[in-house]
Amino acid sequence: MAFSEQELLSLVASVFQTQSSDEVFVGIGDDAAVVRGNSRQVITTDVAVENVHFNKRWSNAFDIGRKVTAANIADVLAMGAKPQYLVIALSLVGDEGLERVRELAEGIKHEADMTGAVVVGGDIARADAISIAITAIGSVERAITRSGAEVGDGIYISSLTGWSAAGLHMLTHEIEPLHAVHAMALNEFRAPSLDYGIDFSRANALTDTSDALLISCQSIAEASGVNLNIDPALIENAYEFKELALLAQSVGIDVFEWVLGGGEDHVFLATGVDLPGIRIGDVRKGEGVTGLEMKKAPQMWRHFQ
Amino acid sequence: MAFSEQELLSLVASVFQTQSSDEVFVGIGDDAAVVRGNSRQVITTDVAVENVHFNKRWSNAFDIGRKVTAANIADVLAMGAKPQYLVIALSLVGDEGLERVRELAEGIKHEADMTGAVVVGGDIARADAISIAITAIGSVERAITRSGAEVGDGIYISSLTGWSAAGLHMLTHEIEPLHAVHAMALNEFRAPSLDYGIDFSRANALTDTSDALLISCQSIAEASGVNLNIDPALIENAYEFKELALLAQSVGIDVFEWVLGGGEDHVFLATGVDLPGIRIGDVRKGEGVTGLEMKKAPQMWRHFQ
Repeated sequence: MAFSEQELLSLVASVFQTQSSDEVFVGIGDDAAVVRGNSRQVITTDVAVENVHFNKRWSNAFDIGRKVTAANIADVLAMGAKPQYLVIALSLVGDEGLERVRELAEGIKHEADMTGAVVVGGDIARADAISIAITAIGSVERAITRSGAEVGDGIYISSLTGWSAAGLHMLTHEIEPLHAVHAMALNEFRAPSLDYGIDFSRANALTDTSDALLISCQSIAEASGVNLNIDPALIENAYEFKELALLAQSVGIDVFEWVLGGGEDHVFLATGVDLPGIRIGDVRKGEGVTGLEMKKAPQMWRHFQ
Repeated sequence: MAFSEQELLSLVASVFQTQSSDEVFVGIGDDAAVVRGNSRQVITTDVAVENVHFNKRWSNAFDIGRKVTAANIADVLAMGAKPQYLVIALSLVGDEGLERVRELAEGIKHEADMTGAVVVGGDIARADAISIAITAIGSVERAITRSGAEVGDGIYISSLTGWSAAGLHMLTHEIEPLHAVHAMALNEFRAPSLDYGIDFSRANALTDTSDALLISCQSIAEASGVNLNIDPALIENAYEFKELALLAQSVGIDVFEWVLGGGEDHVFLATGVDLPGIRIGDVRKGEGVTGLEMKKAPQMWRHFQ
């Protein structure tokens, strides 16, 4: 063990220090945190495992912290809720070194701070591989589920999907980042930026696209009992599509594989009337997802991970 | 992979099925659960790792589920709160077989049901070892922290500690369970029964003893700025002490090592006036824990686990 449990707990507590406030009555250090609650709370948990969801060779500890926290917070935002509190269950091998653990914690805090969420508790265990389970609690007035899509709604994404998949492709194929667009793809894979700025609060249905845009469309279609008709021409006109398409072409990939099947983007998918973001299609009577018949079917096997 | 992700999710959803209710507005299946909240919520998370916190050779999957859930719920009860909602982040190797996963989920549900808590969400990941991270959310009116002990309080435990340590000793030393008292120790190690029945709601300070009774006493003394004076004679008069002492004697252990340093019992430790349970000492002016000078100091090095 490179450090004692006491050193570890002191370090983590110092990064996340929660002073008592109007929101946090009891922070880190007792049997549980005590916080101000709301009449409607959203709760979601995610676990990320080393070499499955993140890789020390490809991301530094700070970015890993950001990435797993963003994935978790995205699920709160995808309900139309406001993130409030996080708890972290961290499994460490024990040879990480305190400085790496500090960077990981600072990455988590950085991403939490961006949404006003506070880390109020956690647990640390020894294991054979690093894993990070985060639970986020948020408050919501009107929860926006996947089942609210209505015939006549437009279909919107908060930004173009596929950048994270492009970054992963570059890393697994050892492609040097020669252009700004390469660097952007790598950044999006290492620590996807959440689309915090977009206002989907008037959406009828909402989810995030972390599994893949096509899977998210299918889940809204199924939960709402409607058809989602996507218009590829609308996607092709999207901001930054040309850059992503050129990058895909340069490595011999159909760009729609990344856009529809990439995953890990944390872009938001909504249906509704006159929403902001990029309109990519319409909600119609029927079922499933249509409009993509002319596009190469992306590899949609969903891995158990 | 012995099963697809879809089979796994269907199975887990069927065990934990949450119908919409006055409490659970949106259950398993969307980006996050939506539940009725309260003005004061407690939040706590725990992670248990295979071969560190549980062992498939020593406990079946149902008992492992019970044990990790009890450990988590104990932290909610230890704040004087009522457990309401659980989310589970489960890492699986993939060779477990669906039946074992079902038993694990049923063990979790069994323990949750005992406190009226509902599993409202989760995540499943692939990893090289099984781990289970549970987050529990509860409601509380008056949170009972470790810092409320007052000079003149009595010190109480909800039941005798040490049984879980006795069971662990039997398993690691391959001692056959010949007597009922052996079986009891094994049961307490495999799936400790939480002392749900005890009413410590009038306590001034409260915590659970999962790390070890002595550590819990020290944490209350430190947080409250008082001295906890333990009277070993009171412990020796406790219900079931004789049985545990005979068991310890038969294997050449000082029974106070188990009682004070054993851990994983999920017994509750409280200070207050005229509380139920077993009185073991008094809160005095001063600091630290005293009264145990004549007892063999238990192995109190707290492992990083």
